[in-house]
Amino acid sequence: MRVQFDSIPKLNKEMGLLVTEYINTLTKPVGSLGRLEELAISLAEMKGEAFPNVTKPGVLVFAADHGITAEGVSAYPQEVTKQMVQNFLQGGAAINVFSREIGALLEIIDIGVAGDIEHERLIDKKIRYGTANFYKEDAMTSEEAESAINIGYDQAVEIINKGAECLILGEMGIGNTTASSAILAVLSNKDVSTLVGKGTGISDEQLQYKVNIIKESIEKRNPNPLDPIDMIAKMGGLEIAGMAGAMLAAATYRKPILVDGFICTVAALLAKSISSTVVDYMIVTHRSVEPGHQVASSLLGKKPILDLGLRLGEGTGAAIAYPIVKSATLMLKEMATFQSAGVSNKN
Amino acid sequence: MRVQFDSIPKLNKEMGLLVTEYINTLTKPVGSLGRLEELAISLAEMKGEAFPNVTKPGVLVFAADHGITAEGVSAYPQEVTKQMVQNFLQGGAAINVFSREIGALLEIIDIGVAGDIEHERLIDKKIRYGTANFYKEDAMTSEEAESAINIGYDQAVEIINKGAECLILGEMGIGNTTASSAILAVLSNKDVSTLVGKGTGISDEQLQYKVNIIKESIEKRNPNPLDPIDMIAKMGGLEIAGMAGAMLAAATYRKPILVDGFICTVAALLAKSISSTVVDYMIVTHRSVEPGHQVASSLLGKKPILDLGLRLGEGTGAAIAYPIVKSATLMLKEMATFQSAGVSNKN
Repeated sequence: MRVQFDSIPKLNKEMGLLVTEYINTLTKPVGSLGRLEELAISLAEMKGEAFPNVTKPGVLVFAADHGITAEGVSAYPQEVTKQMVQNFLQGGAAINVFSREIGALLEIIDIGVAGDIEHERLIDKKIRYGTANFYKEDAMTSEEAESAINIGYDQAVEIINKGAECLILGEMGIGNTTASSAILAVLSNKDVSTLVGKGTGISDEQLQYKVNIIKESIEKRNPNPLDPIDMIAKMGGLEIAGMAGAMLAAATYRKPILVDGFICTVAALLAKSISSTVVDYMIVTHRSVEPGHQVASSLLGKKPILDLGLRLGEGTGAAIAYPIVKSATLMLKEMATFQSAGVSNKN
Repeated sequence: MRVQFDSIPKLNKEMGLLVTEYINTLTKPVGSLGRLEELAISLAEMKGEAFPNVTKPGVLVFAADHGITAEGVSAYPQEVTKQMVQNFLQGGAAINVFSREIGALLEIIDIGVAGDIEHERLIDKKIRYGTANFYKEDAMTSEEAESAINIGYDQAVEIINKGAECLILGEMGIGNTTASSAILAVLSNKDVSTLVGKGTGISDEQLQYKVNIIKESIEKRNPNPLDPIDMIAKMGGLEIAGMAGAMLAAATYRKPILVDGFICTVAALLAKSISSTVVDYMIVTHRSVEPGHQVASSLLGKKPILDLGLRLGEGTGAAIAYPIVKSATLMLKEMATFQSAGVSNKN
């Protein structure tokens, strides 16, 4: 790979201790802001700052198609990927709405949509017109997998240079729960049927069919669970690889990664396979309804912030959780201490 | 009581059905925004509007003292109530920080602090200098209890007239977890020991002592569980009654009530005792660490949005949850439909 991923800095644990002590001087009972206090300490360790700042957030949405849709695993036709990218560019999708709400920088990257899209706001980094059908052949070459990771990395560096102080990674790709479930099955060594969900909304019968397709695909492709490039090349997808690359960049630049739902968490696991310290910079923002998400979150060793029954993707869950992460930083920056406010402490 | 509480309008269920149908036309898989979709439908029913708006939120913080602190039930000295009110007025408390973050109108009301406070921003509605010690005598008279409810009602009407489109009720009152636990024990008919928490941070020994004081106080005062005025008059507190009155006003004016933690949820139960339909306008925003909170939420029949281990009060949990409620309204107002965006629907 062109990009080197061995330069992720260690967490600043001393800063974490300083902030822990400082939080206990704020005008509130010790520990009474629960998870917000934990978040504030984590952010301080990640950024190496006593008053970490997460404004503005940067949102990168990677879009790509999946050849596996030819097997009929998805509720929506493949053309929806392209149509939804156009929706993103027109500002009408859920991630647009929530990105505006949180004042985020938002970029839409075509990293492999199976069709041409013309739009001045689109970042065109198309590697190929969708992956190949991994039930029949490898999704892409190793070189393409590495390119996708590098593109993700570079896009993250760009948005960080534009001022993003934390990163949200989103995706659009009809069929990508299939690719993600396949990767997770290999990584977790769990039975596919315990991981696969109804994605965007398929029936029980279609679900069983999807499980079988994934099982047979894994047998046919036989990817090496210790080699993330092999897993991506054999099963996809381009957008998943892009997200993983972006996470590696975020960690390298000490920017917290707000991990979204199922697909994003699988991308996080791939990033972890490439460089395990990337996990130190991750915050899992919500518990998705997709059954594999809990398995994936556990493999990351992370406890989600929200549990709102979300399963949309696009980065929406992370965007919805962002204000809570921001609240943690404002608690630190703006609350008075017992001393500064002249409030008596405990008896 | 001066104020009449029989004029709370019914939920607009037809609007709820319209909005349910509309949500299913938005460019996302059906149901994929989970709890946000439920919130959007509830808000539409409350406000009777297809595109309900919750901006700006109004935050009313009621402060009062509790004579029961003379029994040594609290970790902090009584003077902290007054000192924290000064902290609110100077903008340094947690509720200030989170109110600024969400662009809220914030009012601080002295409804019974045991000391004089001079500040141009303070709303002085002091009924008395703290309640009496309800271990020894009634906390206040019935007339004082009714006055506190009326003051809360009037303050809510005022902030609604200033443009508040939803209401957050907060409190400050050293000793108020004791009063709230006593009221909840009477309302729920559960053993005090299963309801009482460590409040702002007392030891196990102090906790057992607190339980005993509450049990004996309930026996001595013997309040009528069917008479909310009797419960407030006998056990307090003034700020709890103020919050209950404010909730009744919010419901009367179809403004959603974002219910905070333990004390606020007990106030919500008292409001429900006065006029049961007020509950239709309530959203429980988080699950507090206080053990009584789950009992109180269940009695309201409500499922909390967040579970972040909070136990601060002041309305902070509701303020932290507000952006999620707002997200639900923006989803409705700003997302494109499959038709408007030209996106293909399911196969």
